Amino acid sequence: MKIDRYLIQDTDGKILSKLDPDDTGGFKSKGEAEAKMNKLKDRLAELQDIFFAQKGHALLIVLQGMDSSGKDGTVKHVFSGINPQGFTVTSFKKPTLDESAHDFLWRVHKQTPAKGYISAFNRSHYEDVLVPRVHGDQEKAETKRRFKQIRYFEEMLTEENTLIIKLFLHISKEKQLEKIQERLQDPTKHWKFDVSDLEERKFWDDYQEAYEDIFKETSTTNAPWYWIPANHRWYRNYLALAIVVKTLEKLDLAYPKLNSPTPDISELISPRH
Amino acid sequence: MKIDRYLIQDTDGKILSKLDPDDTGGFKSKGEAEAKMNKLKDRLAELQDIFFAQKGHALLIVLQGMDSSGKDGTVKHVFSGINPQGFTVTSFKKPTLDESAHDFLWRVHKQTPAKGYISAFNRSHYEDVLVPRVHGDQEKAETKRRFKQIRYFEEMLTEENTLIIKLFLHISKEKQLEKIQERLQDPTKHWKFDVSDLEERKFWDDYQEAYEDIFKETSTTNAPWYWIPANHRWYRNYLALAIVVKTLEKLDLAYPKLNSPTPDISELISPRH
Repeated sequence: MKIDRYLIQDTDGKILSKLDPDDTGGFKSKGEAEAKMNKLKDRLAELQDIFFAQKGHALLIVLQGMDSSGKDGTVKHVFSGINPQGFTVTSFKKPTLDESAHDFLWRVHKQTPAKGYISAFNRSHYEDVLVPRVHGDQEKAETKRRFKQIRYFEEMLTEENTLIIKLFLHISKEKQLEKIQERLQDPTKHWKFDVSDLEERKFWDDYQEAYEDIFKETSTTNAPWYWIPANHRWYRNYLALAIVVKTLEKLDLAYPKLNSPTPDISELISPRH
Repeated sequence: MKIDRYLIQDTDGKILSKLDPDDTGGFKSKGEAEAKMNKLKDRLAELQDIFFAQKGHALLIVLQGMDSSGKDGTVKHVFSGINPQGFTVTSFKKPTLDESAHDFLWRVHKQTPAKGYISAFNRSHYEDVLVPRVHGDQEKAETKRRFKQIRYFEEMLTEENTLIIKLFLHISKEKQLEKIQERLQDPTKHWKFDVSDLEERKFWDDYQEAYEDIFKETSTTNAPWYWIPANHRWYRNYLALAIVVKTLEKLDLAYPKLNSPTPDISELISPRH
């Protein structure tokens, strides 16, 4: 499985139309991927245990994508099975008054993972170069400045031992409508329906364009963007998981040794104790 | 499965010696429990999905127990499989300078779950009526005052729709030594070994006595203590999971309905979109 195929590098800002949201990476069926997925999940659990014990690095996974692209589902299916003690998810919503009174990276920085920990951001600081831009109140110069600030911020994090992976869940406009319909028809999904999603859908092209700039300006060697074909949920989950596992495998992971000579506890092992 | 057997109620402060850490609730083997455990895990995932959608209640699970009683393992085995988006774990360590400069409930309150969320506390505010008490710098009047403050705090939380379950993982002194030995012998567990655990072990009886008082003073109808026989990891995990599931099942859980008339999206379903 070559994940490099999904790496976004040196783009000319016109890449999305060339990426197929229906791509399944050669898999012919969901079943074929599922067996491999289970193995990868076990592998993730193994790696996470060492990662947590070693506390040498942190791992930050940024999830972005259009409404209904499956950010929630990816978190659920990729990371159920992980030891929740070493994992956190932060869903960034509309900023609170207090958050808006600070720079846009303030609330994000607070949620970055400590060494040994893995964090997923469900939406992120990238919303701050999307929503205000699409809705017209962010000037070009400001967007540009934020891109620079994001690069510096992510550079600092990686220099200080936080690995960063950024995943863009890529669905087609038709698939989005299908998923909105699902939410309206399935009573267990009604709660996910938000009428504003229909409004935002009208700005589809503007959002895609804003993403093109994001990829151009912020896909760096240390904090790369990957695109995840997301029309098929099962491939989306499989690929996201594979990227996380491959990223951890590149590290020199090992359980720490005892930091002192092994104490002699034989004296404790007596009927008296 | 009757979990009420494990409820600690109206104790006279001399209960621990009567509770068998080897108890397996009638199960004859690990295998027998495992099949049921898998069903319970699926059930937890189902319930959590509705709980998260409904956002009517929060659930707080407090885990306490002697060193090596299996708090970390319980979190890992009971809650792997849960959707991590709706679940957080907080491990309370030695307070920082900033935390110590506040009342002891300050850092705890900040980590309580929002409605729709489940949180596990790996250690908790109960450490503040354990460690300083055993090591002699907490006066009786202060411990007593803190018990009252804890009762009021937990009462407020439950009145405001947070369910609280408090689990005491009960191991024997012999089992603790066995587990310390494991940590010394197994290279994948070396990182868990802490030489201070051997020091603290000398205060075993004082800790047990402090726990007796905790049960007497803080096991309330709304925020009850359960004891979990923890000499057998598999039964510990099974019982903790069963208590969580039964607690959620008592709620009137249902997916929320659409809060507005179903919008007509047929006009969107055309080749133009």
